[in-house]
Amino acid sequence: MQDVISNPQLLPELREQVWRANMDLQVHKLVTFTWGNVSGIDRKSGLVVIKPSGVAYEDLCPENMVVVDLDGTVIQGALKPSSDTATHLALYRAFPQLSGVVHTHSSYATSWAQAGAAIPAFGTTHADYFYGHIPCTRALTKQEIESNYELNTGKVIVETIGDADPMAIPGILVREHAPFTWGTDPHNAVHNAVVVEEVAKMALHTISINPSTLPIPQTLLDKHYLRKHGKDAYYGQK
Amino acid sequence: MQDVISNPQLLPELREQVWRANMDLQVHKLVTFTWGNVSGIDRKSGLVVIKPSGVAYEDLCPENMVVVDLDGTVIQGALKPSSDTATHLALYRAFPQLSGVVHTHSSYATSWAQAGAAIPAFGTTHADYFYGHIPCTRALTKQEIESNYELNTGKVIVETIGDADPMAIPGILVREHAPFTWGTDPHNAVHNAVVVEEVAKMALHTISINPSTLPIPQTLLDKHYLRKHGKDAYYGQK
Amino acid sequence: MQDVISNPQLLPELREQVWRANMDLQVHKLVTFTWGNVSGIDRKSGLVVIKPSGVAYEDLCPENMVVVDLDGTVIQGALKPSSDTATHLALYRAFPQLSGVVHTHSSYATSWAQAGAAIPAFGTTHADYFYGHIPCTRALTKQEIESNYELNTGKVIVETIGDADPMAIPGILVREHAPFTWGTDPHNAVHNAVVVEEVAKMALHTISINPSTLPIPQTLLDKHYLRKHGKDAYYGQK
Amino acid sequence: MQDVISNPQLLPELREQVWRANMDLQVHKLVTFTWGNVSGIDRKSGLVVIKPSGVAYEDLCPENMVVVDLDGTVIQGALKPSSDTATHLALYRAFPQLSGVVHTHSSYATSWAQAGAAIPAFGTTHADYFYGHIPCTRALTKQEIESNYELNTGKVIVETIGDADPMAIPGILVREHAPFTWGTDPHNAVHNAVVVEEVAKMALHTISINPSTLPIPQTLLDKHYLRKHGKDAYYGQK
Repeated sequence: MQDVISNPQLLPELREQVWRANMDLQVHKLVTFTWGNVSGIDRKSGLVVIKPSGVAYEDLCPENMVVVDLDGTVIQGALKPSSDTATHLALYRAFPQLSGVVHTHSSYATSWAQAGAAIPAFGTTHADYFYGHIPCTRALTKQEIESNYELNTGKVIVETIGDADPMAIPGILVREHAPFTWGTDPHNAVHNAVVVEEVAKMALHTISINPSTLPIPQTLLDKHYLRKHGKDAYYGQK
Repeated sequence: MQDVISNPQLLPELREQVWRANMDLQVHKLVTFTWGNVSGIDRKSGLVVIKPSGVAYEDLCPENMVVVDLDGTVIQGALKPSSDTATHLALYRAFPQLSGVVHTHSSYATSWAQAGAAIPAFGTTHADYFYGHIPCTRALTKQEIESNYELNTGKVIVETIGDADPMAIPGILVREHAPFTWGTDPHNAVHNAVVVEEVAKMALHTISINPSTLPIPQTLLDKHYLRKHGKDAYYGQK
Repeated sequence: MQDVISNPQLLPELREQVWRANMDLQVHKLVTFTWGNVSGIDRKSGLVVIKPSGVAYEDLCPENMVVVDLDGTVIQGALKPSSDTATHLALYRAFPQLSGVVHTHSSYATSWAQAGAAIPAFGTTHADYFYGHIPCTRALTKQEIESNYELNTGKVIVETIGDADPMAIPGILVREHAPFTWGTDPHNAVHNAVVVEEVAKMALHTISINPSTLPIPQTLLDKHYLRKHGKDAYYGQK
Repeated sequence: MQDVISNPQLLPELREQVWRANMDLQVHKLVTFTWGNVSGIDRKSGLVVIKPSGVAYEDLCPENMVVVDLDGTVIQGALKPSSDTATHLALYRAFPQLSGVVHTHSSYATSWAQAGAAIPAFGTTHADYFYGHIPCTRALTKQEIESNYELNTGKVIVETIGDADPMAIPGILVREHAPFTWGTDPHNAVHNAVVVEEVAKMALHTISINPSTLPIPQTLLDKHYLRKHGKDAYYGQK
């Protein structure tokens, strides 16, 4: 690591991406004050770039992002990394497919997390991004809260995803807390955070109109999800 | 068609209109990301101008709109047309009265579509534009979803409108999906998309205040609709 | 009247006030498209300045406001006055205390009107402006709708206010339709339109939290209303 | 005091802070018109700087803030202080820990106050700032309303807080009225006003999704509150 640390600006491109993704949380109105953070990983070196803790968005810049390794050791950065760093790292360690993680307290998604309820797949907007409901984790136990809380938050997310493909369910609600999302890079993880918030809002209004609304059938879920993902995708210009 | 294709910029005015109408979806906060599209038709040539698929709004310009014929063949354009093109074309073929079509996932209208409920005509705001409730289609069958999904979406809209005048009901909710609206041109179709969203929001709040609210009587529906439409209209400067 | 008509710009100051008040409907997000109008009266001459019908807000200017007399005859103006003019005039004729009238389809207030429910005085925000609930009129009869609809809308408002002081209840919900507000001048009437919308929003949320919420007691209503109004007022700098 | 009064600009720094905090109420969309006020205290001299009553935000400046002593006597200022001054002063007298007070009629928090309900600690967003539910006071009695209303509003807040640490519950809902918040300075008090509004919104949506949602367990409340406050805090850069 010695050689890496002596480098005056580790991972300048990833720093730029992570900084921009953090700023985009504000653009998309997903955060109040400092209630959100984005990280990205460089899979080659195993280094993660993450927002510093409790710093106002207007004071962020690519240069003050913090670089940590997958064990949480700060490799570069004068500031402390986000207090949620251990959660991000648990996700990167468990799911090699993902390279960006987002945590917010966005209003509607957090309301579902507080209500302890998964967001059902009520329509095609949901199905375009999530191949099934957006899960809500179990509550953490007293022991899990009292020591290594942030690590255990990550573990309970990993436990909830289980054998499912995390890229087909790129987000989750942590019960009594708030959403985490992820993606192929920090930008994509923010994109999924916007989707979760928008879908959460629509789902609340859907059950307000009709409390007995059922999730869409598997056929429609397949159609919309696979229209945008996988080898037979035909949405967009690819 | 050979001659038409060699023309360097087919239908420049309609391209401009369709591009501007697509941009207006953002102005009116009807879209998140690329979740919406507008088309317009030149009834003389039977050519349709439509947004390219999955392209960010800030990258759109009149020149990269796609020109297709009523069978869906791309006549001009380097990009793929909207994945919903077949739905738009089904509407243009079935209803010669309309010359603009809009699809969005606007938040409140989509919630009604997800709830599988028509939006009742609860007030004069609704009656100024829609001569009766805004219908919600039946769900598509497994077969209709699995092959020619977008075409079948158009067909089920046409089936739901039935013998009614599509210009007196210039929009619909596709169940489990989202709204489609139309109009005399792309601009007018966007106008109706704004109305559907606003009316959907009010209708949700109306039933939240009083779940047993009834639709307005036919006399008031007649008064408001006909005050703005038809030969005895007296709203506006015409 | 002859002399007045030859004047190239009748009531230039009132035109400016009415124009600005109409523009403020947009600033306060009370209108979608052209769904709102403001008028003001010059009590000396009995002339009313009102927004032209169906003209986009960005095309309005003091000069294209329309001047009508209390019988609705256009005294000056190339454009047709608002289609709701007869309602405004009925209010000016019945209530000499008021000199500005506003009509909007603002989202939450219109939802209460559609639900056919008065807005209870649930708190001091309400009591600072309305000395009691914001009434909702009865529905118009078939006959009242079919002929002289706009005039009858005004009459049913006047009937609902009855012997009450219209300045102590400076707004009302027309059932199945939308709010009208008024005030000492066009600016003040817009102010009250903002209050009605904000109070309508809070009242919906209040009953969502606690459906059995009761109106505040008369003592608190007295305290807040009279703190801002009447000879013992002590709010503000007067 | 004589000497202090002759000073042409008492407490210029606190004036600047209080003025800026008042302006921030608009930035954070917590106020409509003049429905809010912020004050700050200089504990050394016991002087309080507060917004003048009923003055539009755009006309405020550090120079027209009003200086009062803890008994409410105006020490410096040509304008009348906020009509809620006596409430602010009651809080400063009872709780020496706090140096900034905010009053708003922010929409969601006011709805909870109108519903007469405390905001339960439904999640970590809440627990990051409030060490338990956000209380709602009892209603004031007829006598308390009729004389010294604003002072009695302060007293009922103090009564409700009781023996609790006001810095661990930096805000409250006054029943039938609206929220008051406080903090270590005017800026911090505004910060807490934003939190109360955001938490109030989420709590309404939480019970709309699941009406039987329970508050979070004490362990999680401890974890989040103490992560940000007290000697073992590890959030942020301190």
